Amino acid sequence: MTSSTATPQLLALDWGTSSLRAFLLRDGQIIDTRYSPHGIQHLPEAGIAGFEAAFRQIAGDWLERWPQLPVVACGMVGSAQGWREAPYVRCPANVQALASQSVTVPSGFGPDILIAPGVLLDDPDQLPDVMRGEEIQIAGALLQNPHWAKRCCIVLPGTHSKWVQIENGRIVNFATYMTGELFAVLKKHSILGRLLPETPPASTNNEAFELGLASARDSSPGDFPHQIFATRTLGLAGRLPHGALADYLSGLLIGYELISGLAQAQEETPLILIGDPALCQRYVQSLTYLGKPNCTVLDNTAPAGLWDLATAAGLLA
Amino acid sequence: MTSSTATPQLLALDWGTSSLRAFLLRDGQIIDTRYSPHGIQHLPEAGIAGFEAAFRQIAGDWLERWPQLPVVACGMVGSAQGWREAPYVRCPANVQALASQSVTVPSGFGPDILIAPGVLLDDPDQLPDVMRGEEIQIAGALLQNPHWAKRCCIVLPGTHSKWVQIENGRIVNFATYMTGELFAVLKKHSILGRLLPETPPASTNNEAFELGLASARDSSPGDFPHQIFATRTLGLAGRLPHGALADYLSGLLIGYELISGLAQAQEETPLILIGDPALCQRYVQSLTYLGKPNCTVLDNTAPAGLWDLATAAGLLA
Repeated sequence: MTSSTATPQLLALDWGTSSLRAFLLRDGQIIDTRYSPHGIQHLPEAGIAGFEAAFRQIAGDWLERWPQLPVVACGMVGSAQGWREAPYVRCPANVQALASQSVTVPSGFGPDILIAPGVLLDDPDQLPDVMRGEEIQIAGALLQNPHWAKRCCIVLPGTHSKWVQIENGRIVNFATYMTGELFAVLKKHSILGRLLPETPPASTNNEAFELGLASARDSSPGDFPHQIFATRTLGLAGRLPHGALADYLSGLLIGYELISGLAQAQEETPLILIGDPALCQRYVQSLTYLGKPNCTVLDNTAPAGLWDLATAAGLLA
Repeated sequence: MTSSTATPQLLALDWGTSSLRAFLLRDGQIIDTRYSPHGIQHLPEAGIAGFEAAFRQIAGDWLERWPQLPVVACGMVGSAQGWREAPYVRCPANVQALASQSVTVPSGFGPDILIAPGVLLDDPDQLPDVMRGEEIQIAGALLQNPHWAKRCCIVLPGTHSKWVQIENGRIVNFATYMTGELFAVLKKHSILGRLLPETPPASTNNEAFELGLASARDSSPGDFPHQIFATRTLGLAGRLPHGALADYLSGLLIGYELISGLAQAQEETPLILIGDPALCQRYVQSLTYLGKPNCTVLDNTAPAGLWDLATAAGLLA
């Protein structure tokens, strides 16, 4: 029996801003997977019809074949700009809380879809924070590695990196870092992009990247708006080739995130990275440079998390 | 005799990226002033002809009347993208160093123009930095207030704020903060602009602004990419009205600059602000909030600085 003919138990959707991924799962394992560019900001039509069309395109034949298949989804599809809003669950939150506060939306041609909520941190003693989608990746990581549920720190690098503190299987605290978005926006829309070559070099200049890390490590409070300007002045002063200036900025931004994130995580707490392997590798390199070499890297754990959500919601009973 | 018929001794140009200001000076005092939108990125024609045309438009009749008038200029007109590049003078620098390394360009219809260089800080123990235009405002402030020349810290708030340490009449160290540009770029091009109302409120929400200042004051190293995200989450969590979110971001960014800048300035050093009066007032409010209420605010000192430059260059002998 090939994977395409095995009988699936769950259709799981990881539906973000810029893409949609669909998984057929059985016993928690992926038996088939598809990709679509129809993120919630790139739907084939406007409004609800766009969500329905995107869903039908990616999963219509699957559901014709297995019309009783339960369907779950996570990510921005549950945001205020999504198919149906699944309001945030407050921290601390575990997968049972997520399942109990999921919402249901008719798919337009068969099964309803269960959409997971995001998580809100709203402690008056600190700045508020939100996540949507990462909570499911976290559930997947803990399902696959239950020994971490007692206590760990999970880092999800990206456009809006998350540093998440886990205790007893619950998300107890977390912080977002706009690392990836700052890098993209400053390069494209600020004076810091002016000296950069139109075609970025094929490889990273490690010396420049580590100068950024060191600048972050050695920074004093408030220095950020000054230190980024060196993305320009290191070039003007001839201390870095123009092709290496973006690597300085990347190192500085990742360094800032790591310095701040590590200060929130307890010393002996296991550190787990989840995300794009190349980006995670860059984080491992940076953590090692900053004296924190021990961490574990996981690839996409969203399918396992959606399986866990469906289990907690009773869809697989 | 009205000011327009007094005989001037100097024609001074403050020529930046987005505007051109011309001053007729006599005995160091302004006797006439004009404004033009022909900053070096908004010239009436491309290339050298654009500079010549802008200069002729703003000062042609003055030079017909007083053809022997010496002409000096400062600002981006002396950059690599300017009329003629006046390469940076290295730190420490005083007005004599600026005058001796100024460059001359034919104006196209009469007098040559002396263009002031910028200043480069290139100490291997710190990140490099540059200024162009501010060094002349500093010269003007010290000319008008010679008691500060021994030691002071001059702050020029703006798109790229400068914090400049003066000792014995020389610029000995300085740091640029991209405060204004970060505010503009993050509002316009990042997710932080999403919740902001299209029409900004007429007045500042002081509670939000001071929450930004307090967040900067209480920050730990590396926190910047996290704390800016609260420009969004304070709105999502309902803790600030959407119309106040930009004030939080403004307070946070100014707070970062002040915390870092004050740490570089010595405790008892006089603190002088030069720039737009409303912006300087915002900085005074912020300094007071952070426990540093004593500072002096000066308005535009560029004309006095250009007078000082002309004197040092021997043009007024």
